[in-house]
Amino acid sequence: MDDPYGRPAPFGPLVADCHMAPLARPGQDITFDELQLATRNRGMPLEGLHYDITPVGMHYLLVHFDIPSVDVGDWRLRVGGAVDRPVELAIAEIRSRPEVTIPVTMECAGNGRARLDPRPISQPWLVEAVGTAEWTGTPLAGLLQEAGLADDAVEIVFTGADRGIESGIEHDYQRSLTISEASRPEILLAWAMNGRDLEPQHGYPLRLIVPGWYGMASVKWLTGIDAVTAPFAGYQQATAYRYQESRDEPGEPVTRIRVRALMIPPGIPDFRTRSRFVDGGAVTVTGRAWCGTELVAGVELGVDGDWQPAVLDEAPGPWAWRRWSCSWEAVPGDHVLACRAIDADGNIQPGEAPWNLQGMGNNLVQEVAVSVR
Amino acid sequence: MDDPYGRPAPFGPLVADCHMAPLARPGQDITFDELQLATRNRGMPLEGLHYDITPVGMHYLLVHFDIPSVDVGDWRLRVGGAVDRPVELAIAEIRSRPEVTIPVTMECAGNGRARLDPRPISQPWLVEAVGTAEWTGTPLAGLLQEAGLADDAVEIVFTGADRGIESGIEHDYQRSLTISEASRPEILLAWAMNGRDLEPQHGYPLRLIVPGWYGMASVKWLTGIDAVTAPFAGYQQATAYRYQESRDEPGEPVTRIRVRALMIPPGIPDFRTRSRFVDGGAVTVTGRAWCGTELVAGVELGVDGDWQPAVLDEAPGPWAWRRWSCSWEAVPGDHVLACRAIDADGNIQPGEAPWNLQGMGNNLVQEVAVSVR
Repeated sequence: MDDPYGRPAPFGPLVADCHMAPLARPGQDITFDELQLATRNRGMPLEGLHYDITPVGMHYLLVHFDIPSVDVGDWRLRVGGAVDRPVELAIAEIRSRPEVTIPVTMECAGNGRARLDPRPISQPWLVEAVGTAEWTGTPLAGLLQEAGLADDAVEIVFTGADRGIESGIEHDYQRSLTISEASRPEILLAWAMNGRDLEPQHGYPLRLIVPGWYGMASVKWLTGIDAVTAPFAGYQQATAYRYQESRDEPGEPVTRIRVRALMIPPGIPDFRTRSRFVDGGAVTVTGRAWCGTELVAGVELGVDGDWQPAVLDEAPGPWAWRRWSCSWEAVPGDHVLACRAIDADGNIQPGEAPWNLQGMGNNLVQEVAVSVR
Repeated sequence: MDDPYGRPAPFGPLVADCHMAPLARPGQDITFDELQLATRNRGMPLEGLHYDITPVGMHYLLVHFDIPSVDVGDWRLRVGGAVDRPVELAIAEIRSRPEVTIPVTMECAGNGRARLDPRPISQPWLVEAVGTAEWTGTPLAGLLQEAGLADDAVEIVFTGADRGIESGIEHDYQRSLTISEASRPEILLAWAMNGRDLEPQHGYPLRLIVPGWYGMASVKWLTGIDAVTAPFAGYQQATAYRYQESRDEPGEPVTRIRVRALMIPPGIPDFRTRSRFVDGGAVTVTGRAWCGTELVAGVELGVDGDWQPAVLDEAPGPWAWRRWSCSWEAVPGDHVLACRAIDADGNIQPGEAPWNLQGMGNNLVQEVAVSVR
């Protein structure tokens, strides 16, 4: 043991402190704390962009605290707070309600954090915190209607079974939505992913799915749904998940997913560096693109700074990514491929990372360096 | 773009070079190359030790190159080389053969690499590269018998569909087993994991399963099985996966899994540091233990250096881990919990990491620092 937290000898002193989102020193490599998070949490290898629906075990996963092991016999969903008819429901009662299945692209709000400089110390995603699954569940709106929201209810708070400490504050993982957001017809209480019961790490036996929002809104391992009469001020709502430039400002809340395209890196990789090697000739570059407000409107492939439009396929559904493809005549030498998406409002991915203190919503254009042989 | 490989600005110059297993500087944090590997590859969060059989999406995963996307209609398994009756088999032909299901604990040979000092630069596992799945397939031995091995055949070479470059050498991923090892009855050609078709990242449509060996032997995305008349000298066999002290010696090959126990860290975590906080009183500490030669014989729980025996449950099968548990009276203060396993031959986990150049087989005792409140 080298320090009170059991960090082993090979690692230098921690940059992290008791504040949220401490920053790495300029140019500092990844710390032990970030490595611990990176080996627990799971990105989608970019080859996963090959599939309309991401296989369960390839889907990205971010777990704040520990993955709870829920005994479904004892488990109940408590619906309460400012409602006329509070209720506790067993999983069978929930699963007997009207059922829908929706393909939803989900992305972690911290995706791209490790490309920022200085780098906020947290889960060090590069670009891979994304996936699209078919979620099966029942619309939340129907349950809220049956419970009868009080006239003065302003938000719905969702509580998960995962508990831990962040920035010195012990809490169950909780997030809220306004009544208006919570009433959207596509918001689900989901018990299945890709046609099978949720695996434990994805929220078994029941999770919230909020299409269009970054993943923090889709609370896993639901235990409680409470209507409240004042805006929820819990840690994960009021402190975390804000676009903040400094600690002194509250910042705007993180909500919808920003527009983004990713490509499957073409050719073959070097194991350790992930450098790419491509045979010369005609290459079809493909990937997926999405945004949280509507379907993506366009994608371009960049080759050494020259941009050309890609062909966009239909999306599997209104809340899912679209496949794109673009042909490229690969000539020998070193090249930089890039892709960028644009949404219907004209928002386009930036060529420079949008920096903020928590490392949220970095939808920087992806670049892939390739050597053509 | 900051360098030819597209490494972004926040990261310092690479330590890695064109040699295999370059070493980090003493005390150096995790490099960008290691982070790229850590966000692609997937450890099992230690809460996964709760389950006899690891859910598919929680099982560890190490992929050398890219995950191939196999069109199963075109796919054939080629059985050839020094055999009397070479054959090509479609997946339906393989799946109609005699079928068995075996629970197997699999671990990456590089598990624990990131605890070494100096640290070999490769996939930076801490302790989490493990999982136990029920693999369904047909025994390899029957297929080899039907093909008829030539009298001078000495090894069987297994070829995967994944191709890439390692240490400057381009190759398909290939590994071999001696005829004697390959003929063990529990070695499977597996098409299902936990009762379902393999997901792409676990080797769809067919992979090898070599119970008892580290994971590099269980070749994924099988395309070829060839009997050869001289020991296989491919990169992944003769260069990689060796217990080497220096580059000048060939080293012993990595084969069976070394004895190891892991615990589920008790209490609740801090999100970023993963520090653990436990309520005082009676705590049952649980985990799993395994080794690749036989069932684990014993496990001990250490509390601040005092060791006591744990209770071992039955294993789900002869090639799988055993659950262990041990009671602990938690008194307020800071403590270090540890666990160690011993096999039937008296091999016990070391208290100091067994160093080697490639970072293989580090079965160092796990320590978990906890604060009791």
